[in-house]
Amino acid sequence: MASPDLRRIEVATAPPYTVFIGRGALSLLPEWLLENLPGRRLALVTDAAVDRLHGAAVRERLRSARIAVETVVVEPGEAHKTRRTKEQIEDVLIEAGISRDAAIVALGGGVVTDLGGFAAATYMRGIPWVAVPTTLLGMVDAAIGGKTGVNHPRGKNLIGALHQPAAVIADVDLLATLPEVEYRSGLAEVIKAGIIDDAVLFDLLAAEPARVLAREPALLEEVIARACEVKARVVAEDASEVDRRQILNFGHTVGHALEQVSGHAVRHGEAISIGMVAESRLAVGAGILDPAHAEAIEAAIAALGLPVRLTGPLPGLSVEALLEAARVDKKSRAGRIVCVFPRRIGTMARGERGHGIPLDEDLLREVVAGLGGPAGSP
Amino acid sequence: MASPDLRRIEVATAPPYTVFIGRGALSLLPEWLLENLPGRRLALVTDAAVDRLHGAAVRERLRSARIAVETVVVEPGEAHKTRRTKEQIEDVLIEAGISRDAAIVALGGGVVTDLGGFAAATYMRGIPWVAVPTTLLGMVDAAIGGKTGVNHPRGKNLIGALHQPAAVIADVDLLATLPEVEYRSGLAEVIKAGIIDDAVLFDLLAAEPARVLAREPALLEEVIARACEVKARVVAEDASEVDRRQILNFGHTVGHALEQVSGHAVRHGEAISIGMVAESRLAVGAGILDPAHAEAIEAAIAALGLPVRLTGPLPGLSVEALLEAARVDKKSRAGRIVCVFPRRIGTMARGERGHGIPLDEDLLREVVAGLGGPAGSP
Repeated sequence: MASPDLRRIEVATAPPYTVFIGRGALSLLPEWLLENLPGRRLALVTDAAVDRLHGAAVRERLRSARIAVETVVVEPGEAHKTRRTKEQIEDVLIEAGISRDAAIVALGGGVVTDLGGFAAATYMRGIPWVAVPTTLLGMVDAAIGGKTGVNHPRGKNLIGALHQPAAVIADVDLLATLPEVEYRSGLAEVIKAGIIDDAVLFDLLAAEPARVLAREPALLEEVIARACEVKARVVAEDASEVDRRQILNFGHTVGHALEQVSGHAVRHGEAISIGMVAESRLAVGAGILDPAHAEAIEAAIAALGLPVRLTGPLPGLSVEALLEAARVDKKSRAGRIVCVFPRRIGTMARGERGHGIPLDEDLLREVVAGLGGPAGSP
Repeated sequence: MASPDLRRIEVATAPPYTVFIGRGALSLLPEWLLENLPGRRLALVTDAAVDRLHGAAVRERLRSARIAVETVVVEPGEAHKTRRTKEQIEDVLIEAGISRDAAIVALGGGVVTDLGGFAAATYMRGIPWVAVPTTLLGMVDAAIGGKTGVNHPRGKNLIGALHQPAAVIADVDLLATLPEVEYRSGLAEVIKAGIIDDAVLFDLLAAEPARVLAREPALLEEVIARACEVKARVVAEDASEVDRRQILNFGHTVGHALEQVSGHAVRHGEAISIGMVAESRLAVGAGILDPAHAEAIEAAIAALGLPVRLTGPLPGLSVEALLEAARVDKKSRAGRIVCVFPRRIGTMARGERGHGIPLDEDLLREVVAGLGGPAGSP
């Protein structure tokens, strides 16, 4: 089988692994598994929507390479990224007699890779897993770095593990069928990658929003590879997430809180777009970021069709609700909320105790009032 | 606070940690936490039986050191080492607002340390935990090595993680109140430690069974320290459990199957005692172990009041049931059951592919027939 011409990004975590990016990358999957999976047996974790689009083709590829496949189809959507769904995966694997020499292949968006990776992390104390993201968000963010987990009614990703995938296979062709709203949601993480660590990527997106939105394959490969490189650099510098990795949370303190308060009615990409704009303003207010850079960030986000503020009232949104959501989230330190801020596009600020900078609540109150949410909100 | 004169065993895993052993070791807990726990906040995971005996005293010690304590009391017993109980722990921690700078202290037997350690492994992708074992089994086995997890209806410890404790505090005084049957159950793992890696320890137990059963404190400290050293050596040599760590499974392939088939009516210590005798016979049958050593193993186990065969019929026990239990257990490789065998007391055999040696099913059939179980069994 001739491998297509793929980009390879090495993620230097312990253990290290490769992200393969390109059109037709999926054809590499059976080859990679035969070389790296002694048991020739795997569980394919996917969701019902992805299974309809790609399930049969992937299974056919694997079976013609004589790899035994057990499929677990979970319900699609963030609402199903739960401990209960993880149990469902475990029960199927155990009933099927999957042993420690098998692996999990997670085929889907971030929900599926988070679930599949977490199930692999704790199945018989850990088996390998391969991420095959089918969304832009999954390719540039969810699948790289080993963060796996499930949500809790009180907050996102509260239960989980760091468990690096053995490989990530990002086939750009799979994005052709991705709904527009999901594609834009992924673009939010791509912009974030530019803001936190790659000014060239940011400029590329800001200069060519129409070509990006048209999904031009060559541009898309370049953009995905650059965003993956940012993520790979950051997680390799700090696999245990002690400090450097916090910069990936840009936009996420406010963003996660919006998702939480809205019961996930505000999607991840939209929430962190609004979150990045809000946190840029906090950075300006704290004297860390030049207002011109904050404006450039807002303009680039808007040009890619992503929201920069709430489009309608969000009942229940208040500074207190946001602080509470951030508190039960993992972004607090001895009770204080910490945030990460750019000091210019492409470079994040460092405070006395590293990248996490404690939040000024008065400033937050002002910025939340400006989110365009509930008129009567504090 | 004057620290008592404690033995310290360094476990050279990544990260490394210390096992503190001795009478009054518990007094070290607040001191250790203040030095190593920036958040001064922890969740104390224990079970109802241990809580009645030691809970109030431990909380009092911690509170007088100004450490905030949230207590989670779980139901005692192996039957409650489940995913549901882990969820209970997680829910309490989240409701209490325990953040990533807190830790879990697991106070109890192996069930509690397995549960508390596993909850710590996946809480916000991993927080530190300290093991404070209250049983002999917990001190010499469950708390050291980072194996944490819960049972599945289909098998023991099928869901779990390797998550090393930040410290283990083994206070020999706590063993004074331990019921005789639990004490003997722990002795089974102590004998195992001798057989697999410390002939001096084995001889000590074999020579002085009466003093061991009388729980003479000085002898007990020596015996516990030696057994801990064996465990510490083995897990440090092979923290990821690829090969060397398998030797800890001596007696456990047959033993776990007996627990499983009996629905845990056969206790862990009894099961692995019978398992060690059975697997010694398998080793003799395979020409690996001298029959005289197998007899010495059986005699030492019997002298400590532990069973060497089933005392009554065990409905459902058959070679097939045993093979099935071992298969869903983690001790199979591409469908074949592997076992580890001593080649003499104190030293384990190595086969072509390491310590795990595939089992001869005919030999197993013979040995199972001799377990003293069901008369009409195959």
